Amino acid sequence: MDFSQRVISLSIVIKNAALNKRKTCIYIEDNLIMELGKRQEADIVIEAEGLAAFPGLVNTHTHAAMTLLRGYADDMPLFEWLQNKIWPVEAGLKPEDIYWGTKLAILEMIKSGTTAFNDMYFMVEETAKAVEEMGVRAVLSYGFIDLFDNGKREKEIKATRETLRGILGMKNPRIQAALGPHAVYTVSREGLEWIKEFSIEKDLLVHIHLSETRKENTDCVERYGIRPTELLSKVGLISDKLIAAHGVWLNAREIKLLASHRANVSHNPVSNAKLAVGRAMPYHIMRKAGMNVTLGTDGAASNNNLDMLEELKFAAIIQKLFQDRQTLMPAKEALDIATENGARALRIDSGEIAEGKLADLILIDTRLPEFTPTHNPVANLVYSASGGAVDTTICDGKVLMLHRDVEGEEEIIEKAGERAKALVRRAEG
Amino acid sequence: MDFSQRVISLSIVIKNAALNKRKTCIYIEDNLIMELGKRQEADIVIEAEGLAAFPGLVNTHTHAAMTLLRGYADDMPLFEWLQNKIWPVEAGLKPEDIYWGTKLAILEMIKSGTTAFNDMYFMVEETAKAVEEMGVRAVLSYGFIDLFDNGKREKEIKATRETLRGILGMKNPRIQAALGPHAVYTVSREGLEWIKEFSIEKDLLVHIHLSETRKENTDCVERYGIRPTELLSKVGLISDKLIAAHGVWLNAREIKLLASHRANVSHNPVSNAKLAVGRAMPYHIMRKAGMNVTLGTDGAASNNNLDMLEELKFAAIIQKLFQDRQTLMPAKEALDIATENGARALRIDSGEIAEGKLADLILIDTRLPEFTPTHNPVANLVYSASGGAVDTTICDGKVLMLHRDVEGEEEIIEKAGERAKALVRRAEG
Repeated sequence: MDFSQRVISLSIVIKNAALNKRKTCIYIEDNLIMELGKRQEADIVIEAEGLAAFPGLVNTHTHAAMTLLRGYADDMPLFEWLQNKIWPVEAGLKPEDIYWGTKLAILEMIKSGTTAFNDMYFMVEETAKAVEEMGVRAVLSYGFIDLFDNGKREKEIKATRETLRGILGMKNPRIQAALGPHAVYTVSREGLEWIKEFSIEKDLLVHIHLSETRKENTDCVERYGIRPTELLSKVGLISDKLIAAHGVWLNAREIKLLASHRANVSHNPVSNAKLAVGRAMPYHIMRKAGMNVTLGTDGAASNNNLDMLEELKFAAIIQKLFQDRQTLMPAKEALDIATENGARALRIDSGEIAEGKLADLILIDTRLPEFTPTHNPVANLVYSASGGAVDTTICDGKVLMLHRDVEGEEEIIEKAGERAKALVRRAEG
Repeated sequence: MDFSQRVISLSIVIKNAALNKRKTCIYIEDNLIMELGKRQEADIVIEAEGLAAFPGLVNTHTHAAMTLLRGYADDMPLFEWLQNKIWPVEAGLKPEDIYWGTKLAILEMIKSGTTAFNDMYFMVEETAKAVEEMGVRAVLSYGFIDLFDNGKREKEIKATRETLRGILGMKNPRIQAALGPHAVYTVSREGLEWIKEFSIEKDLLVHIHLSETRKENTDCVERYGIRPTELLSKVGLISDKLIAAHGVWLNAREIKLLASHRANVSHNPVSNAKLAVGRAMPYHIMRKAGMNVTLGTDGAASNNNLDMLEELKFAAIIQKLFQDRQTLMPAKEALDIATENGARALRIDSGEIAEGKLADLILIDTRLPEFTPTHNPVANLVYSASGGAVDTTICDGKVLMLHRDVEGEEEIIEKAGERAKALVRRAEG
């Protein structure tokens, strides 16, 4: 595959892909799906016999550069894990680490069918550079943490403004800036209020961790006399711009409040299980409330991969197990959560293979043993496949992976591996 | 790859594989690991730079031929699913279906690193033929179901004896016959008693479903006044020959009883979650009791794949979530469950890469994005990898997959796909 198509605009036709059980030709021009039908000619022709087309997956909560910490520390009590392992290493992160760690993350995403992600971390200009080069879409926020300190708050406001300027300066339509107040236990009320004002002023999405653990709720009640969602409500942060990650310990009243303001909640079931947060997110209540539920992997330190197809299966079955209901979150609904719902939350016009939509889509190899037979392609995708079943990934009308081949893969793996080794060596002294 | 080595005995050396973080050459002669060290010459040389060696995975509970029903019916209430979907299709199964369905299952197993499995189904001679041809190991039992009917019991006894004769007649050291009383709600006490006598007489393993659902327990108490494990105890079936699948609703007393007789329990967490059995198997109690806990995928109709690496991750994180303990079932322990413990239960001298052990092992590609960096190869294998990371699979000293290439893959996928389609067509009329 010659990846020079990445810089010049070429039309693409995907010939004879299975789409909703029928064979279709998908014609792409610029960055849009222009025609679903019989058209067979284009600058680039992808023969898709045996492949099924699905929308690109949307990962609505991650910390991409944390791939560098994959497998560095596992199976530890949460606080010990953060205090003794994760934070000391993070303190030594250099810009090149963020850059290569994010490139590794995006490589993994492309290889497992993710075309857009919602990220919160720091040195965001490095993340943005990696996104620009790799060709996916991203919503990027600087993780705002003032720890209830006025001086720190001023620094975080400055860093947030600078991050925004940097991203806007790139003028890349694939990259969206957002705000990232870390959580109610790390950001002061004044910090949250500034975020709210700034988000309205600049029309920016707000990405926050919300009610991930029971402790987060009880600590908030101790500090403010109200629960985290109530605090966000008082501050005025609950709107369709809000993407709240986790939501494990939300109660029915809070879910109703969030849903009625069209706020989005990102389910991250693998990370929640690995970190033992105590229960599964109450999806059944959210569903009833009409909430826009989306799906994320969280960072690779607590997952430990970015495979949205694995996450999808885990979400669908953990919900069944916790609510004692085999019919909860059926396959098609799980897939919508990971595509349409995610795209809606991130304000990206994708998540569906239809004329006029952004050309963000994946081709799945249906000739794999785990995809045989194909009584139901959606059930196979959700319950049988993992990221390795993705054959081809297209984002914004560009081919990012063709038949599992991604440009520059070896260099990214080598460089990211080296950076990770050196990073840990520095932290351990 | 020339697979003719499958019929003549050739020595193998795996050069420079990572084994416990050190590079080693693994020398295999006949079906044994003969030497770990520097020996570089053999009839077959596999260059394993960038690959890590692990024991082959052991799947201790499945119904292989059910791959034909993968994705046929999902997200339904349990009884409706069985009665309206699974059973009508199973009623129309022909010998060729079992044969091709099992071949598909074994292909999927080989491609995801499983070298031995414990199966319960019917027309077992077809399963055995598939195992013989594909090169893996299996413990095969005829699913004995008498539904408390004397006539049926006699038929099942006859079928069980015939199955045993057939398997013994094959004289294949990779294939072990076992007994398969389906469960206490489908087999009469007299049936269980016959199984017990016959198991002692012939020294056969006994594979049973045990306390999968709460209903199984309450129904048993209603019928017998005692719980399923107590019934097995009265009948005398609890011994180191017993492999009890599921064990979700075992209580502490039953666990102690089973463990003290060195019975084995196969955890099948994905199937349990998808079928919403109400809780996670109480692994923490089993662990304390010193139980030999093993791992299985169950059949593809309720999973819907046979990927033991996915199952491994799910087991490790579901246990953490349910017991609210991040330290429960750490990565190395999960891996042991899926290798050593499984081999012990099935009386196979594998599960460990050591001199003198059976040459059942896999090579994992550590150059994949999801395996980068490699701070901890075991953590990467358990938490990051899925079956697609398996590069090479060796069983009984024969190379069954080399660099993802398995002999006859296309034909199996084609034939199994056709059989599945026709099977469903027959059932739906």
